[in-house]
Amino acid sequence: MTIGIGLLGLGTVGAGVAEILLTPQGRHPLVGQLALKRVAVRDLNRPRPVELPAEILCTDPQQVVNDPAVDIVVEVMGGLEPARSLILAAIAAGKPVVTANKAVIARYGEEIAAAAAEQGVYVLIEAAVGGGIPIIEPLKQSLGGNRIQRVSGIINGTTNYILSRMADEGAAYGDVLADAQRLGYAEADPAADVEGGDAADKIAILSGLAYGGAIERSAIPTEGINRLDACDVNYAAQLGYVVKLVATAQCLGSDADGTVQLDVRVSPTLLPKDHPLAGVHGVNNAILVEGDPVGRVMFYGPGAGAGPTASAVVADILNIAGIREATGNGGGLDPLLAANRWRPCRLVDQGQTLNRNYLRLQTGDQAGVIGRIGSCFGDEGVSIRSIVQFEASSERNDAEIVVITHEVQEDNFRRALASITALPDVKAVAACLRTL
Amino acid sequence: MTIGIGLLGLGTVGAGVAEILLTPQGRHPLVGQLALKRVAVRDLNRPRPVELPAEILCTDPQQVVNDPAVDIVVEVMGGLEPARSLILAAIAAGKPVVTANKAVIARYGEEIAAAAAEQGVYVLIEAAVGGGIPIIEPLKQSLGGNRIQRVSGIINGTTNYILSRMADEGAAYGDVLADAQRLGYAEADPAADVEGGDAADKIAILSGLAYGGAIERSAIPTEGINRLDACDVNYAAQLGYVVKLVATAQCLGSDADGTVQLDVRVSPTLLPKDHPLAGVHGVNNAILVEGDPVGRVMFYGPGAGAGPTASAVVADILNIAGIREATGNGGGLDPLLAANRWRPCRLVDQGQTLNRNYLRLQTGDQAGVIGRIGSCFGDEGVSIRSIVQFEASSERNDAEIVVITHEVQEDNFRRALASITALPDVKAVAACLRTL
Repeated sequence: MTIGIGLLGLGTVGAGVAEILLTPQGRHPLVGQLALKRVAVRDLNRPRPVELPAEILCTDPQQVVNDPAVDIVVEVMGGLEPARSLILAAIAAGKPVVTANKAVIARYGEEIAAAAAEQGVYVLIEAAVGGGIPIIEPLKQSLGGNRIQRVSGIINGTTNYILSRMADEGAAYGDVLADAQRLGYAEADPAADVEGGDAADKIAILSGLAYGGAIERSAIPTEGINRLDACDVNYAAQLGYVVKLVATAQCLGSDADGTVQLDVRVSPTLLPKDHPLAGVHGVNNAILVEGDPVGRVMFYGPGAGAGPTASAVVADILNIAGIREATGNGGGLDPLLAANRWRPCRLVDQGQTLNRNYLRLQTGDQAGVIGRIGSCFGDEGVSIRSIVQFEASSERNDAEIVVITHEVQEDNFRRALASITALPDVKAVAACLRTL
Repeated sequence: MTIGIGLLGLGTVGAGVAEILLTPQGRHPLVGQLALKRVAVRDLNRPRPVELPAEILCTDPQQVVNDPAVDIVVEVMGGLEPARSLILAAIAAGKPVVTANKAVIARYGEEIAAAAAEQGVYVLIEAAVGGGIPIIEPLKQSLGGNRIQRVSGIINGTTNYILSRMADEGAAYGDVLADAQRLGYAEADPAADVEGGDAADKIAILSGLAYGGAIERSAIPTEGINRLDACDVNYAAQLGYVVKLVATAQCLGSDADGTVQLDVRVSPTLLPKDHPLAGVHGVNNAILVEGDPVGRVMFYGPGAGAGPTASAVVADILNIAGIREATGNGGGLDPLLAANRWRPCRLVDQGQTLNRNYLRLQTGDQAGVIGRIGSCFGDEGVSIRSIVQFEASSERNDAEIVVITHEVQEDNFRRALASITALPDVKAVAACLRTL
């Protein structure tokens, strides 16, 4: 049984997918049953890394969706529109969709999932998070017996590359970013990466799968690495930590009506050097899932790039092809693969979350300042793990004091911080970061 | 639609599975559709960690297989027989099987797969390798678009615990083993773990899935850690390596008739300290998969224990339940999940394999010995990466020379080693290990 594939887009990922479909030898035999039937490109005359018969190329993506020879629509064009409309059009035509589009899924995932459920078709998104790392499927299927406690990950390769170099070279953020842009590891407009938006898209998707309900993408507290100071990376290293941009989705309990309370966020985070995520370097990604009864499992690999992302897209195509072979052309949906929502979820107020914090204060180098800071924390019940005074700048008679707290409620920490800021010896709160 | 589950065995893993099935709240809703219908135990009167209604317990496992209320048979009794016969009986009765039994699958996997294919039922084995780490499913489904180049892993927790402590404490193998036995990390009869047989069972299974064909389990070159000397762990550390028991299955090409040539083995192996597997400590497992086009992806987590293994067993049950919901009671098999063999594979002659080698020689502390050793390697075209003389024992006037080669053909290395052994200054080949 041949299964017709239609591609929306033939950029790096699209070309990678075409490359796999055109060279089935040595891959799972099901790949040999996939036939590329129609490909929408922006410009018919542009040179491409893969050679395709001219007659399957077209410039109107709607033609791909409508082509009766296309059984599965693969959206790898990116961007919000027309990608979203084309995904919905494919669903309306009763065709399963595979997409790598994290921005669309993070924003319109509910609309798309509802349409897919109504039409009884799959929309699979393995390539939307973690590039080639199988993470969507394990969350949907292999870990389904677990109560997931926390999903945390390094899911943006660009920022991890920048942070790795800042740590290795003691370099400043701006310098490494400029170099990363020159080398092609960061975009000309790096905002989505360095401000954390890309990671927020991805953790929104992972959270939805791990907990079975959507959260408001725009409400996810998101802090990027663009204001991170090299000296905090340096101090963290001296204290036994590595700074990473970590996205987390943690279950804090549930309301009386069963709504799951979630703390979902993206922030530069200190990880103890022996934490499984601390050893993830360069453009690699890793996702740590903590569940009951599985414990901690981690998925690691290349988080982007044509080959890895194409591997994930083809995984989804194969899943649809495999289940189609099992059901014939009829049948219902596999509820694991379809990943329907099954319970409401909501973001909790940040003040109620429990966190370990890293705080850097600029103070006058005066006797007693550590004691006064400690008292402010003590008054609010904030327990301190370590407090270290780093070398004062002799010209300015300034000292830098770094405090790491135990796990404390955010509201208490903020109140203590307000008292500390009001101390006459404290000149500035220079940095405030999360710690795992 | 309720799906009836029958359990063969209620030991640690069986009890872990029952625990999940009895507490569906907060897990995937499909768990709530699974009903434990019948459980075979050895002794009805033994106290158990989970409370089950007395009427579902029985002592005859065949009753579980035959019970019409049982839709899926879960084998978690372990051992070769009667486990193998019961699995075959369940298949013959048209019931899908979930098993955690690596020993049975590594030895009788072909017989079982053939019977399952004939009856059109699934036999799923996620729990057989890597405990709670999803690795079987990703190899079968998520990485299906790839040509797998190599699967390598730390897949025996007991030996990794022993090696981690040997490295951390500089302790001798025998001492750590005795302590591990006392703490319950090693069995009273540790042979299957420390001699590498357990890892060989598991890599045979992974190889079959990664390459689509079986190899002869008994022909896998297998070396354990039971003859490993603490001084090699120490020297390796000084040279920037960590010693791990690594199981690998590597594709070396294919014969003219398409038979895949595989180098599959288990051996204590030096890993460079920055290798992804080098950071896997204690009883954890990790499996690194290298494929085209995905690159390197790694799966990490607890490799054993009731909770993790039960998580994997339930994953398989859910997969069968999910696809049953999609197909109704009819339908065929999903060829990805069924994991049929699709091409012949064979083990290559070890002499033809390419390896980096670590060699420790005991020599007289005489001028020129390094030169003579170097010449023996040079004569056979064996390229040396480093050669280091470690401190001579002054009483015996002995020196220890450690050689690490570049990647060389095993036959050439062995010929060079024969010449070296014949040198009058060389007293003994004290150790010869693989290096990644």
